[in-house]
Amino acid sequence: MQWKNNLTRLLSIEYPVIQAPMLGVSTPEMAAAVSNQGGLGSLPVGGLSPQRTTELIQQTKQLTNKPFAVNLFAHSIPAIDQSTAEAMQAYLETVCLANQIPYTKLALNDLHFYSYKDQIDVLIQEKIPIVSFTFGILDDESIQSLKAAGCLLNGTATSVKEAELLTEKDIDIISVQGIEAGGHRGTFLTDDPLPMVGLMSLLPLIADRVSKPLLAAGGIHNGQTIKAAFDLGASGVQVGTAFIASPESVAIPAYKERLQRSSETDSVLTRSFSGRWARGISNTFMREIDKSGLSIPEYPIQNSLTTALRVAAQRQNNAEFTNMWAGQLASASEAKPAADIFRKLIAQTEALF
Amino acid sequence: MQWKNNLTRLLSIEYPVIQAPMLGVSTPEMAAAVSNQGGLGSLPVGGLSPQRTTELIQQTKQLTNKPFAVNLFAHSIPAIDQSTAEAMQAYLETVCLANQIPYTKLALNDLHFYSYKDQIDVLIQEKIPIVSFTFGILDDESIQSLKAAGCLLNGTATSVKEAELLTEKDIDIISVQGIEAGGHRGTFLTDDPLPMVGLMSLLPLIADRVSKPLLAAGGIHNGQTIKAAFDLGASGVQVGTAFIASPESVAIPAYKERLQRSSETDSVLTRSFSGRWARGISNTFMREIDKSGLSIPEYPIQNSLTTALRVAAQRQNNAEFTNMWAGQLASASEAKPAADIFRKLIAQTEALF
Repeated sequence: MQWKNNLTRLLSIEYPVIQAPMLGVSTPEMAAAVSNQGGLGSLPVGGLSPQRTTELIQQTKQLTNKPFAVNLFAHSIPAIDQSTAEAMQAYLETVCLANQIPYTKLALNDLHFYSYKDQIDVLIQEKIPIVSFTFGILDDESIQSLKAAGCLLNGTATSVKEAELLTEKDIDIISVQGIEAGGHRGTFLTDDPLPMVGLMSLLPLIADRVSKPLLAAGGIHNGQTIKAAFDLGASGVQVGTAFIASPESVAIPAYKERLQRSSETDSVLTRSFSGRWARGISNTFMREIDKSGLSIPEYPIQNSLTTALRVAAQRQNNAEFTNMWAGQLASASEAKPAADIFRKLIAQTEALF
Repeated sequence: MQWKNNLTRLLSIEYPVIQAPMLGVSTPEMAAAVSNQGGLGSLPVGGLSPQRTTELIQQTKQLTNKPFAVNLFAHSIPAIDQSTAEAMQAYLETVCLANQIPYTKLALNDLHFYSYKDQIDVLIQEKIPIVSFTFGILDDESIQSLKAAGCLLNGTATSVKEAELLTEKDIDIISVQGIEAGGHRGTFLTDDPLPMVGLMSLLPLIADRVSKPLLAAGGIHNGQTIKAAFDLGASGVQVGTAFIASPESVAIPAYKERLQRSSETDSVLTRSFSGRWARGISNTFMREIDKSGLSIPEYPIQNSLTTALRVAAQRQNNAEFTNMWAGQLASASEAKPAADIFRKLIAQTEALF
């Protein structure tokens, strides 16, 4: 077992540690800090406009000349069920009123969702070396265009079947997302029931069936967990939650603070904020919406419906009404510069290999 | 990191591999086979009468002169809610009739539940060297009696708080049960929400806070997973599902067969069979009871109410109406003698240390 391996060579990086893309938390500064230290930073752009995607990529490039990954959301976009969406809007208005949060009603007819397909040309133009994705598999045309441009592809699996499907599409690298992971589940084959497989079972199962390099994702936060992931068949790891309390993160102060004093049972799975299953620290909004018994519109509809509420709550530094995505090792998140967090991980790991 | 360590010395065994107690699956033959190979076999007696406990212990002693553990259920016994129990009985009768399963109605007034307290004297009399328990913590008097008799105690934790509480009570060894584990969750502090922590997060968190030897439980099935558990702070492992398809197991043939062709997403958490959360392979009964919307009586009431149904289904080799407890690596269960399964595990692990 080698710490510097096929994956570091493939990605042209020094250490097989990837900063996980965390939309709403990660920044160009975070991605650049990790890439500059010899890891792989990730810039999340899922659902953003091509213009915003270009801006963020260019900002990152100004901060590093090392490779970094850009992360897409590869879901399909469902039709809006008008009555479910209207009932949810009415409910959100009530919640805002009752909690002194300014409410901005969205005109459902004006809703526009960008697809990852709108972003492919930007990625090719900007010569992005690694494109990662989650929530699905890119369509064949996008895969071919990116591969023809010399881009490496990194998909996300939460079950053996998903990993096998990514392999069939010849995706270069597979992130294996255990149930420990914070944020959205990458699940795309079926979420009824949602695959909730621990990394300790999922990694060896996928390593047995698939010959692509694997990244372990979920709860990775120190040398021990990195070593264990390698024992189980990973060639690299993805680290997200450990970077949330860093100054390079745009998480609000209340979220950073809650994260650090949370226990392993405080983070739970919820569809409340986005319509997609995600792991985050339990708060008032999550509990209230469960109690309401309302049907939650699918992703990305619910995500758009709750945007105004979340943005307003964030302005108030109000952790009870915005998502606080976090993995089961949230408490390991330190309020230190991303580069320091990264270097500590590397030092701990090198001592074990 | 040592493969033969403080735990093997403490337990006077050769290898730190414990066969997990699986009530309804494990037998004296299974426990003896593992103990005879230098591991630690476990004899589950949770909820059994003192007389039956004695018989099983004596049967095991006839098959091995090595140490083995006896496993208790340390729950408290709730009062019966008559109307919920009657509604459940009526439902179970309908299910049996609709599925050609003989139905035997239980007289609710005749229900008797044995407590682990009824079994302590037997364990002391039989000089059992290791008593493991789950679903709670033994009361102080039982702890003192067993310790005074020279017995080592092994409790089960599914969260950091539970491990800390076991440590406060000076329990000698702690089993850390990840969400990957088959069978009943050992959870005893709160199951709302149920702690669903992956071993990869739970083990290092508990290892950080607690100085007792830890056993990793959940998904452990080969050398790799044993090595990873040791990396994360375990001094030993508990292996259950891997032994279910062995000839020493009394699982019905249909259960063994389903287990071996199941995938990691086939096993789900359910309260349907016993009133306590447990992981098992999804079947018709689990799905139907969910659909019924009926309130499920607490453990052990529901367990008693479904006993006749489960026994009758087992007689028919009908896997759809009996529990098929299984961890997330159910497919690793081989139809080989327990001794062979054990020796293979040891050989794989020794090659990695």
